[in-house]
Amino acid sequence: MELEIIDSISRLVSQSSKGDVHPVGIGDDAAIVRIRNQTVLMASDMLLDGVHFNVKSTPPYLIGRKALAVNLSDIAAMAGTPVACTVSLAIQRGLSSYWILEVMKGIKDLADQFEVAVVGGDTNYWDGPFSLNVSIVGNEHPKGSVLRSGASADDRIFVTGPLGGSISGKQFTFTPRVKEAQWLRDHFDITSMIDISDGLSTDLRHILKSSGVGAKLFRDRIPRNQTSTLNEASGLHDRQPRLCTIDEALTDGEDFELCFTLRPDDAVKIFDFAPRHQVQIFEIGSVTSSVASLMFDDGTAIESRGYQHR
Amino acid sequence: MELEIIDSISRLVSQSSKGDVHPVGIGDDAAIVRIRNQTVLMASDMLLDGVHFNVKSTPPYLIGRKALAVNLSDIAAMAGTPVACTVSLAIQRGLSSYWILEVMKGIKDLADQFEVAVVGGDTNYWDGPFSLNVSIVGNEHPKGSVLRSGASADDRIFVTGPLGGSISGKQFTFTPRVKEAQWLRDHFDITSMIDISDGLSTDLRHILKSSGVGAKLFRDRIPRNQTSTLNEASGLHDRQPRLCTIDEALTDGEDFELCFTLRPDDAVKIFDFAPRHQVQIFEIGSVTSSVASLMFDDGTAIESRGYQHR
Repeated sequence: MELEIIDSISRLVSQSSKGDVHPVGIGDDAAIVRIRNQTVLMASDMLLDGVHFNVKSTPPYLIGRKALAVNLSDIAAMAGTPVACTVSLAIQRGLSSYWILEVMKGIKDLADQFEVAVVGGDTNYWDGPFSLNVSIVGNEHPKGSVLRSGASADDRIFVTGPLGGSISGKQFTFTPRVKEAQWLRDHFDITSMIDISDGLSTDLRHILKSSGVGAKLFRDRIPRNQTSTLNEASGLHDRQPRLCTIDEALTDGEDFELCFTLRPDDAVKIFDFAPRHQVQIFEIGSVTSSVASLMFDDGTAIESRGYQHR
Repeated sequence: MELEIIDSISRLVSQSSKGDVHPVGIGDDAAIVRIRNQTVLMASDMLLDGVHFNVKSTPPYLIGRKALAVNLSDIAAMAGTPVACTVSLAIQRGLSSYWILEVMKGIKDLADQFEVAVVGGDTNYWDGPFSLNVSIVGNEHPKGSVLRSGASADDRIFVTGPLGGSISGKQFTFTPRVKEAQWLRDHFDITSMIDISDGLSTDLRHILKSSGVGAKLFRDRIPRNQTSTLNEASGLHDRQPRLCTIDEALTDGEDFELCFTLRPDDAVKIFDFAPRHQVQIFEIGSVTSSVASLMFDDGTAIESRGYQHR
């Protein structure tokens, strides 16, 4: 039902009388909006108590930080530069001013770090649970944005960091890959890119669908998080640190690493460059011509909601 | 408490390391964001069940329409042109797909009417009440935006329509004054402007504060709505149509008419021009040099939350 309504909404709003205004539109990480003779990137994310955080257990600073970080990640996935954001708050009556200001500090500190201006917003009180929306505008990369639709057969597939287990902390503390994406776009012709919010298997499928291709992943080369590392970041500790399973790495989501594709000749070169520039990259597979097919190198199909144990 | 937190947030986010990015910032109807060599208007509004509408009684189409309309009104108050918007939804589980699509149709139809593209969004399900956020970007007027800060003593004060009683229907059916604002800016040097969302007495005070001036209003010339007219628009009917009181006209809010100021010589000219262009205007008072003082022409003070009955 939830996926159906998103499709219905997409169909409705794409019946635009003003098609030239948004060359990309609703289907990519950020929209490209034409304003006079220039283009602007625009994205928006809403975070809800009980869904993306928990008012009772998540430090408010980290709630605010995450609300901006996921938007920065959207701009990063286009290889753009974030410029300014607005913040809308739905404040549950009874939450203290201190708590709310901590949320705003989490936003403000990350905004300063990425040189983003907080230019406006809307503050409301209600009896519903706390929620907030951050909207962001940014610059396109001088060489143009990277879309989801440019991958072709034989391209190599990369991710910018280990995946899985983000729920135990990294979802609140991740570094949006803005600088990494810009560095990648500066030096290579990235053919497609997306940020991993719903899990590698789901988000890679968006690239495959948009590009009309398939993919084969190296089962043993998908980088996986240590859950203990993640928990340390959030101030919580597992008794038994362990490596995420492949299934978790493919489906947990909220990793906010980038997944991107490169032509084979660029793929060879990137490993010479990236380490010198502190950009972490992992080659995890290659693009195939089998439309929408996602499998491991041993031929096992990867199901829509991720790897299914046999 | 609610006003205090808004002040605290404003102070926090205005400590920007990137002050040149937002020449206006959080204090006006829309922010002016510099992107490369150009500026973009940006605004954001969140609407909440039980605060701005009621899921049980408000037609979903009108909820969607209002969510975009208040943003269009923000752009209008700068005399700008809206270009594109994003829509974030927090959908309470149990609401039907039909209901949600009606919300989106309300947005889409108004967007088409104002040639605004719906370029993206974020659709979420939760157990909390329905809420939505619309963010908008727009073009500045070629002659520049109209701020709240440009009024000076002897300027005349105008509104674009009758005020009060909006809660009985007009809050959902109002026409955002985008075209009116552009026409005004095309032909006159509007010295300040704001849209009336919180009531004339509150919103005019924002102009007075930003401009460092005061105002005197003609008690008998403030245009007031007929409540029956409003109810007709929403499909509801009062048994006894009546004119809003002055108090209601000053404090009800959600009028979404524009309040603006003009130099005295322009104020004389405007009545020759406006009717021919179907722009409704009402002269309601004049600007004084008594900082932050708001009163009627008979000398009665208008209290902060509006006119107080003697």
